[in-house]
Amino acid sequence: MSLEFDLETQDTPFIDRLDEEARDAIHEASMYIIEELGIQVKHDEAVEYFEEAGATVEDEYLVTADRSLIEENVETAPESFTLHARNPDNNLEIGGEDTFRAPGYGAPNVRTFEDGRRSSTTDDYELFMKLAQQEDVINSTGYNVAEPTDIDQEVKHLEMVKRSLEFTDMPVMVSTYGQDRTDANLEMIGMVMDDPELSKTYAAGLVNTVPPRTLDSAMTGGLVGLAKEGQAPVVSSFIQAGASGPGTMAGAVALANAENLMGITLAQLINPGNPVVYGVPASNLDMRYGSLSIGSAESALFANFAGTMGRYYGVPSRGGGGLTDSKTVDYQAGFESMLVNAAAEFSGVDFILHSAGIIESYSTISPEKFVLDAEALRFLDRFQEGYKIDEEMLALDIVEKIDPDDHFLGESHTLKFAGEDFLIPELVDKRSHGDWRGDGEKTAFEMGHDRVEELVDSYSKPELDEDVQEELDAFVKEESARIMDEA
Amino acid sequence: MSLEFDLETQDTPFIDRLDEEARDAIHEASMYIIEELGIQVKHDEAVEYFEEAGATVEDEYLVTADRSLIEENVETAPESFTLHARNPDNNLEIGGEDTFRAPGYGAPNVRTFEDGRRSSTTDDYELFMKLAQQEDVINSTGYNVAEPTDIDQEVKHLEMVKRSLEFTDMPVMVSTYGQDRTDANLEMIGMVMDDPELSKTYAAGLVNTVPPRTLDSAMTGGLVGLAKEGQAPVVSSFIQAGASGPGTMAGAVALANAENLMGITLAQLINPGNPVVYGVPASNLDMRYGSLSIGSAESALFANFAGTMGRYYGVPSRGGGGLTDSKTVDYQAGFESMLVNAAAEFSGVDFILHSAGIIESYSTISPEKFVLDAEALRFLDRFQEGYKIDEEMLALDIVEKIDPDDHFLGESHTLKFAGEDFLIPELVDKRSHGDWRGDGEKTAFEMGHDRVEELVDSYSKPELDEDVQEELDAFVKEESARIMDEA
Repeated sequence: MSLEFDLETQDTPFIDRLDEEARDAIHEASMYIIEELGIQVKHDEAVEYFEEAGATVEDEYLVTADRSLIEENVETAPESFTLHARNPDNNLEIGGEDTFRAPGYGAPNVRTFEDGRRSSTTDDYELFMKLAQQEDVINSTGYNVAEPTDIDQEVKHLEMVKRSLEFTDMPVMVSTYGQDRTDANLEMIGMVMDDPELSKTYAAGLVNTVPPRTLDSAMTGGLVGLAKEGQAPVVSSFIQAGASGPGTMAGAVALANAENLMGITLAQLINPGNPVVYGVPASNLDMRYGSLSIGSAESALFANFAGTMGRYYGVPSRGGGGLTDSKTVDYQAGFESMLVNAAAEFSGVDFILHSAGIIESYSTISPEKFVLDAEALRFLDRFQEGYKIDEEMLALDIVEKIDPDDHFLGESHTLKFAGEDFLIPELVDKRSHGDWRGDGEKTAFEMGHDRVEELVDSYSKPELDEDVQEELDAFVKEESARIMDEA
Repeated sequence: MSLEFDLETQDTPFIDRLDEEARDAIHEASMYIIEELGIQVKHDEAVEYFEEAGATVEDEYLVTADRSLIEENVETAPESFTLHARNPDNNLEIGGEDTFRAPGYGAPNVRTFEDGRRSSTTDDYELFMKLAQQEDVINSTGYNVAEPTDIDQEVKHLEMVKRSLEFTDMPVMVSTYGQDRTDANLEMIGMVMDDPELSKTYAAGLVNTVPPRTLDSAMTGGLVGLAKEGQAPVVSSFIQAGASGPGTMAGAVALANAENLMGITLAQLINPGNPVVYGVPASNLDMRYGSLSIGSAESALFANFAGTMGRYYGVPSRGGGGLTDSKTVDYQAGFESMLVNAAAEFSGVDFILHSAGIIESYSTISPEKFVLDAEALRFLDRFQEGYKIDEEMLALDIVEKIDPDDHFLGESHTLKFAGEDFLIPELVDKRSHGDWRGDGEKTAFEMGHDRVEELVDSYSKPELDEDVQEELDAFVKEESARIMDEA
C-alpha cells in the first residue's frame, strides 16, 4: 500500500476582495486625489521634503504631487523589516509570513469585572504591560494601551514607554504626538538597547492621518522623528466613513489610500528605504446615532482592504483587531472582535493594533476582554497552523484495530496525539454543564477575571541591567522636570 | 479623466487548507478504509444494494467495496439541487453560489435569559419555528430544533414536522430515525405541497453515521426512505475526534470521509442522481474532561474540510455552524460561534446546520442566542456582499468639495449612501456609552431577550389552505394513534 504520505495543510489562501482591476481602480482614484485635489501637510519640514522632491505647494500646506513621485517612493519602501526587541527571541519580521499583534491603543477608560468603568491610570498601564508580556499571542507593547489619566499629559509618553521597556521585553511602540516626544522615547529605547545611535529598527509608532486629506502637525512630526532614525511609522488613515470620509466603502478606501501613500512617500523622502507599515483602521458611522462603529462588517472589509493593498504596494500592512462597539464583555464583544480579527488574519494583514482588550468603540479597554481576546487569537492561530497528513496522523492502523462497535478513548495513540493536535484552551469553559454549574455558573467575563489574577500572580519582570534602569529613571526624571518647567 | 469605473469586489476566495495532493491523500486513505477494512451497514436492504452492486459483505454487515464502485456512484450525485419550499420565494439552490442555513439541531434543553436552563418542550419548538421564519438569514426549518420532551418520543417526529410546515413556509427537514418516520414525514410534506408523489425535492434529512465505520440501522433507514423519494440525505459522519474517531485531525477526516462516501454511494445505488449533501460536523474531545468540543479551532478546520471535499467530489457540502461549548450566552459563545460560522462561510460550505441558537456543545439551545447568531450572520453576509467601486461610490466630487478642515456628516451623498453601504444592525448595541447606561446597561443576552419578544409579537403564521390543515391534522392524529396502539 502506498499511503506513506508526508504532507501538511497549505497556508490559508488570502481572502482578497479586490481583484487586479479593482486594486488599480482604487489606486487611480487615490492618484486623482493626490494629483488634482492635494493633501494638506501641516508640518513645515515635511512640506519642504515634498517641495524639494518636486511637489507643488499651495496655501502653505496643500501639497499636490505627480503620481510618479508617489509611486517611485512607495516602491522604495521595504516589503518587510525586522522590529527588534530587547529580548531577541521577541524580534518580529513585520511583512513576513506571520501576523503580529499589539494590544488596544488609546482608551481613556478601563472596565473591569469587579469595578465597572472608570478612567484609566498608570497602574492600569502597568497591568496591561504585564498581561501583554504574559500572553504569547501578543507580540508588541503597543502604546497608550490604557491612557494614564492620573499623570500630567505632557509627560505621559515618558512614563508609558518607561513601563513598556521595564515590564516587557517585546518590541515597543512610541509616542508620535510631536517629534520631541518621539525623539525622547527613542532616546530611552537607545539606552535600553545599548544602541544610542539606533542602528536597528526597535520602535514602531502609530501615525494617524486626519481625514479628509490631512497629515496634521503633531503626528507628521512623529513620522519625521521616526524616519530620521530608521524607526517604523505605521501610517494609518483615521477614516471614519460617513464622518471624516465619504459614506461609502469605495470612497472611504480611496481617500484613506491617498493619505497613506502621502505619509509613506514622506517617510521615504526623509530616509529612502525606511521601514513603514500601511494601515487602514477605518470604521464607519452608525447613521442612527452618529456613533462610531468599529465592530462592524465594514471594519472587516477595511481590514481586508489593508491586507490586499499592502501586498499591492509591497509594504507590510496594518488593519483589523479585536474590535467591538459593545460596552461590556458579552456575546457582542465576542462575535464582533472575532469577525474583525479573523478578517485581518485571513486577509494577510501583517501587524494588528487593538488586537486585544478594546470595547466601546475604542473608548474603553478591559483586562478581562484582553485575556479573552488572547484566547480567541489562540483559536485563530490553531486554525492557521493546520495539520499534518502522514502515516502516523492518518492512523489507519488504529482505525483497523478498533472494532466498529468500540471507540478510540484510552488508546495510546489517542492519548499521545489528541492533546497535541487539538488545542487545549487556557481560559474558556469546556467542562460539563454540571461542573460549570457547580463552579458558580461563571460567564466568560468572570472567568477572564480569574485569568487576569493568575497571570498577574505568575508574572515576573524581565531582567533589566541595574545601570540601564538607573539611566532610564534619571532620564525620565530630568526630561519630565524640563517639560514641566517649560509648561 | 478616466475614472468611470463600474466595478464590484470579487467573491471571497475559498480558504482551502488542502491542496490537490492533500485532497488526493485523504481520498486514498478513505479508499483504503472502504476497500480493506470495510464499513458496517446495519440495514438489510442497504446491504443488499451494496451486494448487488458488487461489494463484498462479511459478518452480515461489514461491507468492503472496490474504489470504482464508490467513485462512480459519488460521481453520479448532482453538484447542486433545488430544495423546494411551500413558498417558492424560499426555494434554495443547495450547492449554488450562496450558503444556506438551518437552526440548531437536537438540543434537549433550552436556556432563556429569564428562566435559565430547563428541558425543552413543544412550545419551545414552536417558538424556534417562529424565530426561524422571522430571521431572513435562516433558510430552512431544520429539525428537532428544540427536542419536545413533553410529548411521547414515538410521535414527536409528527408533531415537529407538522409545526415546521405550519409555522414557516421554508424548506423543511424531516426525521431520519427509521424509514417509517421518514416516510410519515414525507407523506405530510406531500399533502402540504399538494404533490403526494413528491415530484420535486422538498425535504432534507440529517443522516449521521455512527463512527467508527458504521452506518446504523435507524438512520440508514432514513437514508433509504429519503433516496427512494428523491429527497436529500445530508450524510454526515458524526466523528468526535479522540472518541468515535482517531485523536488526530488527519485520522478523523479520513475516517469521516470514508463513512460519508459510503452513505452517498448508497443513496446513488437506490436512486442514481439523487440529491445528497456531504457533511462533516466533526468535533473533538477535550482530553482534560472527556467532554466534547464543538466551538473549537478544530471544528473550524473540520468545516473547512467539508467545503473543500464537497468541491473535490462535486457534491454540496455541510459543516460548521454557530457552535460553542459555553454554557450561556457570553463572550465565549460569541467568539466561538463566529469562528466556526465564518470558517464555514469562507470555506464555501453550502448548507449549515446549527447555524443559530446552539450553546453547551449541542446540549442546549437558547432563543436569545438564536437571534444573536442571526445578527452575527448578517454581519458575515454584509462582508460577503462586498461593495461597488464606481464613480458615484468613489465620490471624488464630494472629496473635492469638502474642505480638508471640514467633514462629510450631513452631506446629501453621505445621508443617501451611508445607510445603504453600511449595515444597520438590528439588535446589538451601537449607541454611546451614556445611552447604553441610561437604558440599563443591558448585555447582548438581555438585548436578545428583547428581540425575541419583538419577533414573536410581530410574527404571523404564513397562510395554509384550510383543507390542507385539516388533512395534516387528521394524518398526525391517525398516525399517532396507530403508533401508540402498537407501542
